[in-house]
Amino acid sequence: MVIANDFFFSGLSKPADTANKANKVGSNVTLVNVDILAGLNTLGISLVRLDFEAYGLNPPHIHPRGTELLVVMEGTLLVGFVTSNPSKLFTKVLDKGDVFVFPIGLIHFQFNIGKTNAVAFAGLNSQNPRLITIANAVFGSKPPINPDVLIKAFQLDKGVVEYLEKEFMSN
Amino acid sequence: MVIANDFFFSGLSKPADTANKANKVGSNVTLVNVDILAGLNTLGISLVRLDFEAYGLNPPHIHPRGTELLVVMEGTLLVGFVTSNPSKLFTKVLDKGDVFVFPIGLIHFQFNIGKTNAVAFAGLNSQNPRLITIANAVFGSKPPINPDVLIKAFQLDKGVVEYLEKEFMSN
Amino acid sequence: MVIANDFFFSGLSKPADTANKANKVGSNVTLVNVDILAGLNTLGISLVRLDFEAYGLNPPHIHPRGTELLVVMEGTLLVGFVTSNPSKLFTKVLDKGDVFVFPIGLIHFQFNIGKTNAVAFAGLNSQNPRLITIANAVFGSKPPINPDVLIKAFQLDKGVVEYLEKEFMSN
Amino acid sequence: MVIANDFFFSGLSKPADTANKANKVGSNVTLVNVDILAGLNTLGISLVRLDFEAYGLNPPHIHPRGTELLVVMEGTLLVGFVTSNPSKLFTKVLDKGDVFVFPIGLIHFQFNIGKTNAVAFAGLNSQNPRLITIANAVFGSKPPINPDVLIKAFQLDKGVVEYLEKEFMSN
Amino acid sequence: MVIANDFFFSGLSKPADTANKANKVGSNVTLVNVDILAGLNTLGISLVRLDFEAYGLNPPHIHPRGTELLVVMEGTLLVGFVTSNPSKLFTKVLDKGDVFVFPIGLIHFQFNIGKTNAVAFAGLNSQNPRLITIANAVFGSKPPINPDVLIKAFQLDKGVVEYLEKEFMSN
Amino acid sequence: MVIANDFFFSGLSKPADTANKANKVGSNVTLVNVDILAGLNTLGISLVRLDFEAYGLNPPHIHPRGTELLVVMEGTLLVGFVTSNPSKLFTKVLDKGDVFVFPIGLIHFQFNIGKTNAVAFAGLNSQNPRLITIANAVFGSKPPINPDVLIKAFQLDKGVVEYLEKEFMSN
Repeated sequence: MVIANDFFFSGLSKPADTANKANKVGSNVTLVNVDILAGLNTLGISLVRLDFEAYGLNPPHIHPRGTELLVVMEGTLLVGFVTSNPSKLFTKVLDKGDVFVFPIGLIHFQFNIGKTNAVAFAGLNSQNPRLITIANAVFGSKPPINPDVLIKAFQLDKGVVEYLEKEFMSN
Repeated sequence: MVIANDFFFSGLSKPADTANKANKVGSNVTLVNVDILAGLNTLGISLVRLDFEAYGLNPPHIHPRGTELLVVMEGTLLVGFVTSNPSKLFTKVLDKGDVFVFPIGLIHFQFNIGKTNAVAFAGLNSQNPRLITIANAVFGSKPPINPDVLIKAFQLDKGVVEYLEKEFMSN
Repeated sequence: MVIANDFFFSGLSKPADTANKANKVGSNVTLVNVDILAGLNTLGISLVRLDFEAYGLNPPHIHPRGTELLVVMEGTLLVGFVTSNPSKLFTKVLDKGDVFVFPIGLIHFQFNIGKTNAVAFAGLNSQNPRLITIANAVFGSKPPINPDVLIKAFQLDKGVVEYLEKEFMSN
Repeated sequence: MVIANDFFFSGLSKPADTANKANKVGSNVTLVNVDILAGLNTLGISLVRLDFEAYGLNPPHIHPRGTELLVVMEGTLLVGFVTSNPSKLFTKVLDKGDVFVFPIGLIHFQFNIGKTNAVAFAGLNSQNPRLITIANAVFGSKPPINPDVLIKAFQLDKGVVEYLEKEFMSN
Repeated sequence: MVIANDFFFSGLSKPADTANKANKVGSNVTLVNVDILAGLNTLGISLVRLDFEAYGLNPPHIHPRGTELLVVMEGTLLVGFVTSNPSKLFTKVLDKGDVFVFPIGLIHFQFNIGKTNAVAFAGLNSQNPRLITIANAVFGSKPPINPDVLIKAFQLDKGVVEYLEKEFMSN
Repeated sequence: MVIANDFFFSGLSKPADTANKANKVGSNVTLVNVDILAGLNTLGISLVRLDFEAYGLNPPHIHPRGTELLVVMEGTLLVGFVTSNPSKLFTKVLDKGDVFVFPIGLIHFQFNIGKTNAVAFAGLNSQNPRLITIANAVFGSKPPINPDVLIKAFQLDKGVVEYLEKEFMSN
């Protein structure tokens, strides 16, 4: 029996916590996707609220299944995405009321360059856009990627790769 | 030559006018679709800002190409959609931070039931979701639909149909 | 165990009843969709037979999931559809052997303007194209839409809206 | 400038010629696709009228882009389709008002087993469903397929293959 | 619990048998589709290894759900496909390292015209592209197609059709 | 005028150069996509040949538009992909004739762990699957990503980030 509450979610009025230990980057993303709003099933859309403390970062990541269309509510964000090869960066500073598009499958980020909190909302055209946080996927996968692969791919010393795998594996 | 501005739009920070003559319903919708933000091309998403004066209405309408996922920023909205036959209404009162889904192709509305202005944002999963405002399409098409069709379909007197066609044709 | 009968339906040789009480508009639509012809599953097509008594009407409606391609077998029909905003009407009188397209998601109607019965067949490109009869969805939903919404949207008196909701709710 | 005639086609009221020389199989198919009805563009549907003289055949063929949903208007047809490997035949005799589905991409046929003419209409879910007549594609392609391929594939004598290539190439 | 082996298949290093009785055409196709590699589910791709003895043939066939992109590893193949009506043949001789495309839904074949074995690999853009071997579908379906249909469609004598149906039914 | 050569490409019989300066990772990928094989247009498939010198690496990368299905022809490869959050690694050692799937949009790599050259072929279900090489996109974009973003995201010292940006920008 379907009811109106199946199409309803409450809880985007307040900032999410950006200061907890697990979240060293100073940002927090609240995702309203089909997992918490069942009525989205088959409908191809989801919504996020993004909270940033001062100098908080939503680090480089990819949504493999969705394009993101973001509007800033409060604060000033430096945002950007990198195209597929060749790697060209499109970047912009956004203020309140500004809108920016992050095309499906491309690496992108949002960085609060102001001294105060920032808030943004974004729509994504998938009921479950998925998230690949680049640093976590590369250096923090379980089990870890063979260090020789990362040393060669990133041209880093063995010590730096081992340090990074330790850092990101513990998250 | 593609540049960052192709993915950027500025202008959703201020309320749109809800009191002009052409807009008797007391609401105004600012649409960011591919027509004004070229970078949305092929990406399957758009964004709207909805402004309502007290008791303002976004009247019953359909987006034939997109589902709408709305979040209230300010005020209190009575919202609802009607399923395809049988016609079942799903309705809800939304406050700040509340989210509601309007599935693709179904008749829906948003009504400001508070004494103050209301503001909402919504994502739609189409670069051009299109809009069919029911009353305008039925009673205000150009040229008008044969009155006999409307008399029979809506079980209205000829005079009422003629009055409605005059009203909506002049918009 | 799939058998040939799964792809077979019998029963479109005779007119459907157009004079029953529930059907005041003088038409009847017999739909062959996946609900009654299981072999249509995943195949993206369905079929209708439309019967009209003299001056019978298939009232303004929408198929949210399918385009309709109609051919007249008998009689003379006035048909039309209205585009999404702006609301432009495309209309035509059809005789035997004439074909007309009703694009997906747009409001359309068929009206028998002859003194005799009319018959048409149509294909729709969905196994379940769905149906939104506009007057029923707006004035006859269960529960009813808040009358203030309809008064404002259709610019009708409260009495007329109450009359219409009573009429269409009883269907 | 789009007009109502872009969505209109006239000419399915009369039987097509089934007795011309090029059409030895005693049937004729009149196709209403996007090539002759421009308004079908992007809408994913088309329509055919099929005429059969007594014992006329619409020979085994495939529509690579569309499923066909057929209804008999007059006469008696033996119809069938063969599944992909393993090759299972689903077959049925259809009378007036009977409906049958031919799934996309499968070999199918319609054969008039009555002594009188037969007529059917069918919808296909593509604006251009395409047609591969098996015998013509295999034995009548231009240039012809290497006879050694056909001899081995169909386990026919060289003389029979050469006869067939001559027959079908001249069509 | 998903594991790495769900995305793994072993067994394309050796030629498949091309000399068994059921396979009179002197070729054998090893298909890696979702039925034997579960991790392909929803991913829209499959792979085949094709082995040919001298003068072996992969007879005219269709993949109703996938385009095939083939690369020759060893030997010399005559390949071709026939377009939908009109039936135009595109054909080419391929040597080691040569690539050829067989578009979705079209009749195509590969014929080893060298005196030695040939090997090719091909990708198909479906997890289950399906296979319709033309001769088997037309002359070897179970139950058989009415011989009158085949006599008229292929313009063959009754005796030849009966011979062919006997041959292909026994496979 | 379409000809057979539009569906044909020659040149995958020999190894590509894996020792050039620009390609420090010791691998080389030859891509047959729609840009070099026009007949692939709209057909949704492409092909690659991958060559590896001893210990050569195809570094972590993403194809935003296509799943990759790979078969090893020669040598021994360590391969793997990382799921979207949480970051789980699926990894496997492949020998000749082994097949592995890399799902669309996920970070993956192939590493030659043998002392001899390795060769693989792969199909991808897009006419243009695109390529995002992670290290190049993050550290080598033009213009470079703001170093503060990378310092925070990868938890690296400023000096290491500057070193990496210099390395990858010069490629």
